Amino acid sequence: MIPEVGIIMGSDSDLAVMKAAGDLLNEFGIPFELTVVSAHRTPARMVEYASTARDRGLKLIIAGAGGAAHLPGMIASITSLPVIGVPIKSSNSMDGWDSVLSILQMPNGIPVATVALNGAKNAGILAATILGAYDKKIGDLVVAYKKNLEVEVLTTVEKLKRDGWTNMFDHSS
Amino acid sequence: MIPEVGIIMGSDSDLAVMKAAGDLLNEFGIPFELTVVSAHRTPARMVEYASTARDRGLKLIIAGAGGAAHLPGMIASITSLPVIGVPIKSSNSMDGWDSVLSILQMPNGIPVATVALNGAKNAGILAATILGAYDKKIGDLVVAYKKNLEVEVLTTVEKLKRDGWTNMFDHSS
Amino acid sequence: MIPEVGIIMGSDSDLAVMKAAGDLLNEFGIPFELTVVSAHRTPARMVEYASTARDRGLKLIIAGAGGAAHLPGMIASITSLPVIGVPIKSSNSMDGWDSVLSILQMPNGIPVATVALNGAKNAGILAATILGAYDKKIGDLVVAYKKNLEVEVLTTVEKLKRDGWTNMFDHSS
Amino acid sequence: MIPEVGIIMGSDSDLAVMKAAGDLLNEFGIPFELTVVSAHRTPARMVEYASTARDRGLKLIIAGAGGAAHLPGMIASITSLPVIGVPIKSSNSMDGWDSVLSILQMPNGIPVATVALNGAKNAGILAATILGAYDKKIGDLVVAYKKNLEVEVLTTVEKLKRDGWTNMFDHSS
Amino acid sequence: MIPEVGIIMGSDSDLAVMKAAGDLLNEFGIPFELTVVSAHRTPARMVEYASTARDRGLKLIIAGAGGAAHLPGMIASITSLPVIGVPIKSSNSMDGWDSVLSILQMPNGIPVATVALNGAKNAGILAATILGAYDKKIGDLVVAYKKNLEVEVLTTVEKLKRDGWTNMFDHSS
Amino acid sequence: MIPEVGIIMGSDSDLAVMKAAGDLLNEFGIPFELTVVSAHRTPARMVEYASTARDRGLKLIIAGAGGAAHLPGMIASITSLPVIGVPIKSSNSMDGWDSVLSILQMPNGIPVATVALNGAKNAGILAATILGAYDKKIGDLVVAYKKNLEVEVLTTVEKLKRDGWTNMFDHSS
Amino acid sequence: MIPEVGIIMGSDSDLAVMKAAGDLLNEFGIPFELTVVSAHRTPARMVEYASTARDRGLKLIIAGAGGAAHLPGMIASITSLPVIGVPIKSSNSMDGWDSVLSILQMPNGIPVATVALNGAKNAGILAATILGAYDKKIGDLVVAYKKNLEVEVLTTVEKLKRDGWTNMFDHSS
Amino acid sequence: MIPEVGIIMGSDSDLAVMKAAGDLLNEFGIPFELTVVSAHRTPARMVEYASTARDRGLKLIIAGAGGAAHLPGMIASITSLPVIGVPIKSSNSMDGWDSVLSILQMPNGIPVATVALNGAKNAGILAATILGAYDKKIGDLVVAYKKNLEVEVLTTVEKLKRDGWTNMFDHSS
Repeated sequence: MIPEVGIIMGSDSDLAVMKAAGDLLNEFGIPFELTVVSAHRTPARMVEYASTARDRGLKLIIAGAGGAAHLPGMIASITSLPVIGVPIKSSNSMDGWDSVLSILQMPNGIPVATVALNGAKNAGILAATILGAYDKKIGDLVVAYKKNLEVEVLTTVEKLKRDGWTNMFDHSS
Repeated sequence: MIPEVGIIMGSDSDLAVMKAAGDLLNEFGIPFELTVVSAHRTPARMVEYASTARDRGLKLIIAGAGGAAHLPGMIASITSLPVIGVPIKSSNSMDGWDSVLSILQMPNGIPVATVALNGAKNAGILAATILGAYDKKIGDLVVAYKKNLEVEVLTTVEKLKRDGWTNMFDHSS
Repeated sequence: MIPEVGIIMGSDSDLAVMKAAGDLLNEFGIPFELTVVSAHRTPARMVEYASTARDRGLKLIIAGAGGAAHLPGMIASITSLPVIGVPIKSSNSMDGWDSVLSILQMPNGIPVATVALNGAKNAGILAATILGAYDKKIGDLVVAYKKNLEVEVLTTVEKLKRDGWTNMFDHSS
Repeated sequence: MIPEVGIIMGSDSDLAVMKAAGDLLNEFGIPFELTVVSAHRTPARMVEYASTARDRGLKLIIAGAGGAAHLPGMIASITSLPVIGVPIKSSNSMDGWDSVLSILQMPNGIPVATVALNGAKNAGILAATILGAYDKKIGDLVVAYKKNLEVEVLTTVEKLKRDGWTNMFDHSS
Repeated sequence: MIPEVGIIMGSDSDLAVMKAAGDLLNEFGIPFELTVVSAHRTPARMVEYASTARDRGLKLIIAGAGGAAHLPGMIASITSLPVIGVPIKSSNSMDGWDSVLSILQMPNGIPVATVALNGAKNAGILAATILGAYDKKIGDLVVAYKKNLEVEVLTTVEKLKRDGWTNMFDHSS
Repeated sequence: MIPEVGIIMGSDSDLAVMKAAGDLLNEFGIPFELTVVSAHRTPARMVEYASTARDRGLKLIIAGAGGAAHLPGMIASITSLPVIGVPIKSSNSMDGWDSVLSILQMPNGIPVATVALNGAKNAGILAATILGAYDKKIGDLVVAYKKNLEVEVLTTVEKLKRDGWTNMFDHSS
Repeated sequence: MIPEVGIIMGSDSDLAVMKAAGDLLNEFGIPFELTVVSAHRTPARMVEYASTARDRGLKLIIAGAGGAAHLPGMIASITSLPVIGVPIKSSNSMDGWDSVLSILQMPNGIPVATVALNGAKNAGILAATILGAYDKKIGDLVVAYKKNLEVEVLTTVEKLKRDGWTNMFDHSS
Repeated sequence: MIPEVGIIMGSDSDLAVMKAAGDLLNEFGIPFELTVVSAHRTPARMVEYASTARDRGLKLIIAGAGGAAHLPGMIASITSLPVIGVPIKSSNSMDGWDSVLSILQMPNGIPVATVALNGAKNAGILAATILGAYDKKIGDLVVAYKKNLEVEVLTTVEKLKRDGWTNMFDHSS
């Protein structure tokens, strides 16, 4: 199937975080591609990737990076597709603030849809939500997904009521 | 025309920032509605707004708020549409950090597509980009918009070359 | 006994922190209920919980949440009872700043009585202090509790004087 | 009338911020006293004020201070009444962070109910909410106050709908 | 011998950090007392300690505390002796920022001589330096102490030159 | 008279802040010298100043600097006198954080007695307090100074009681 | 003359800050070019600029940008010349932290030589220092420049000694 | 061979971080010296080192330090060679912010070329880049180094394509 979403990251060390986006899209049955594109080490590949994305049929791009994270913003500067940015808390980062601010604080004209630090799973859900705004089937899956979040909490609530919170806590530790 | 985008904000004092989103959507010819919905002062209205948004034909929602900014996240928890969050630097805020973190750091399951502090214009562009992923006419306008950004810079470059940067600076001050 | 205090939290993973509030209320003999209410995953349950709290006899609500912590503020927007907010330092949070600012920086009209990061025990003591302002029996327990804090320190002081600080330190390590 | 609430602050320069708490209590008809008590310049007065507060009939204390703000915490260490702390952004402060952290991050055993930076109005509302948990008349006023917040927003919503947001914005600037 | 320096801390859990101050004073042969004084749990003891310090012959006080650290500033508000404050990074603190700002940002009139986070050793050296400004014997020890710091570095420099840095690094890991 | 205190600063633009230290020492009748010593622009002068300070009769040094503020720490590395550091919030600084951290976070062995941001007045008081630990006349002045702080607050308290806080506030604005 | 240094910036609004780099290079007689290159709005021009820089004879590039500042890092990823980055505090930035971290925290392999916030003048001096490491004439100018900084301070020192600091301060205000 | 680069650090405990700079220079075949120079413990040695550096043939200096890191800036104040500063995240630092700001925020006239927190490897690459601007052989090695970074990423890309990201992730954990 032709991928609708591109998941890219600055380094394969980001894969431990970014795989949650892929898992989520698999769960929603949304075809995607996943690869490494480094703004700093492979700038030519980055330009190529971003400038051909729309014509290759992608509907949006999820880009994750740590530190001085330039990948999401640079991709957004080249493509006209929506770009979801995932700040990654890498080693030697300033506790993640560098990555968050490098992705979030884009200048007027070139937005990046930023999610929480290490929020690759939410990037996947946001992608599904965006696709679901037009694609009724995916939209219904998003509704079901949110419904399920609610059901899981309500199940926990029942369990707490039945077992008591002191017991529950003892078991979980 | 039926609005495709809902622009909401926590208070009419946010209008000075959020109008940039409306102006941008007007520029792209995207029909939208704009109103005040306060998570904290009108929680019932907020639930009503979010839970009917999809059926009223909206494709996405832009929500701006300052301080402990709960509006974008709460809207995202109720609707299955994509929500773009605009952190606003209000008076007595902690330099905007409160608003940024309250919108960005959403838990797994409920993403908000966050843009830069006071980035209402970028929220409008992101909305156009998202709609443009499916709607070729809007997609072409996004391409043209980005092309125009480039042209504007190149015009400045020519002006700098012609007049010299010392003159340019003197004129602009 | 009818609960006077409601302890709620956004997720059962918060229980490891929030149980300290329950333990404290048990110590003071204040009846309470404890359950999970998620602003983002169970918004309907949250509205229901907050809007019925006063009529069910609750005198105040302790709400703990991490990240973009909307639960305390949203509960406060719906109920007219006092709400004590407990910021929780969850994994992938921005070192707890997100949770603190999301709870503390509420707009005019909708205060949340915020305690320290992970300060669930203090939330319990604050609840006892508030109830004790009207209920002489609880008020006396608060006085005794504070007296006991003093006694504990004075006991340590005696021990330090008797054993010497070098010995004490050696034993405690 | 015997004051039920004590409003204190570290310096008369804090009055510009703290008067909002007094105005709010006046609006609710709650009797209060307002004075200056400095933890650092009048420690004896501070001890006297806090240790007699309960016997003088106070139900709670609102304490505001800036910089290394020790007043709320020290009052809380001496009295068994609930203490609401108001961080104040004073000149030469570290953008208010010093005041917020000095009041919020109290150790186990001695909580301060902290409100937002410069949130004196919210301190007044929180006081009314706490008193209203036991005093039905005040409780009803809190309900009415929150209802009124909602009505004000809905009035703005109507005005926006009638006049259009572009006009509204033009008039307000 | 009559103590010239008082070392106090808010809790015996601070002893692991604060003992470095005692060790340093022992090294300089400066008589001192060391005990626990809690601003929040033993306010009466704190007032007693501070108000008698000068008459008991103390020349200065070293006070360490974590979180919303009020002990150094409150001691400074009561005594006319110099107070050295040691911010301590305790568990659940906001990465130490709370302690640093609570001690450093004292208002005009009541200074605290603040040292680095967990800088108890430096508090001891600063105490010796202050006493050494008047007491020639201690002053000479301070000079010798600083000379020794230099000698230690120069010894390392020789070792590096002799063994080579690659070997040195291998041996130290 | 031979100066007992040296007040130095990195630039004459710091004089607007640092003069408060001179004014305070004048008020206490403590002889001092005041000059500009730049760690970065006059390193030789800095070494000279610090290495001769003790022999010239100085008892302590107050050093103020902004940005990457190296002056207080470098002076402390060379002299065996106590050094009080004043962080200054200069233009283009990172809101004063750079100056605070550059002065406060000195390594083991070389403490700087740091006061609040722009706290030159407190640096003067701290100097008087340190000198007053040995010099009874200055010690008594410190006691009187602190007493006077108390009297000023109590006068304000009387004024507030007499005139009412609403009037007071109206007059002060 | 063939430019040896390229000064570029993301927008002509950065010229007010960046002109200080040009002025400094003029003062040193170092030929340079100055223009606008936007990473986000003119990515193709950026790639072109960086990839031809070395062959056009440039020895180094000074790049300034604000917010999510990607220009210096992207230039450094494409060229093999040294890149000096100037963080700019633009409106709506997070107090400059975004720009500082986006430029400083580059990943392994692609360094940017970062100077202080708005430090365009220092970027110019750093450029002269780098060129002066090889070019004796420029190196001598750097030595003279630093000597002059010292002379200016010493002149101020003399003026302070002659006129007194109280007079000096009065004149400067 | 005569060293062209001096690598210095404030303490031998910094060697674990700073060795990466030495390894990199070895890789590029650039002769260097490596030693410990402490601004605070060996100020005389620091002055000596910096003032003789140019005449000993060094072309630039890499200086690493943690906490209140004064070494890079002080070296830059004395020598006319370019200085690359490496902020080090040492124990008891404020999460590295102290070191970053102490090195980065240098005043006008005395720049330090700052690299990322713990970025010693990048300091080495930056040194090679600076030397390579004049020395064609080193310049060609920098080009090759960057080319190799690209090749490594492209190899990872191929591996990801061949093995699939789910497999890759399983193998790397």
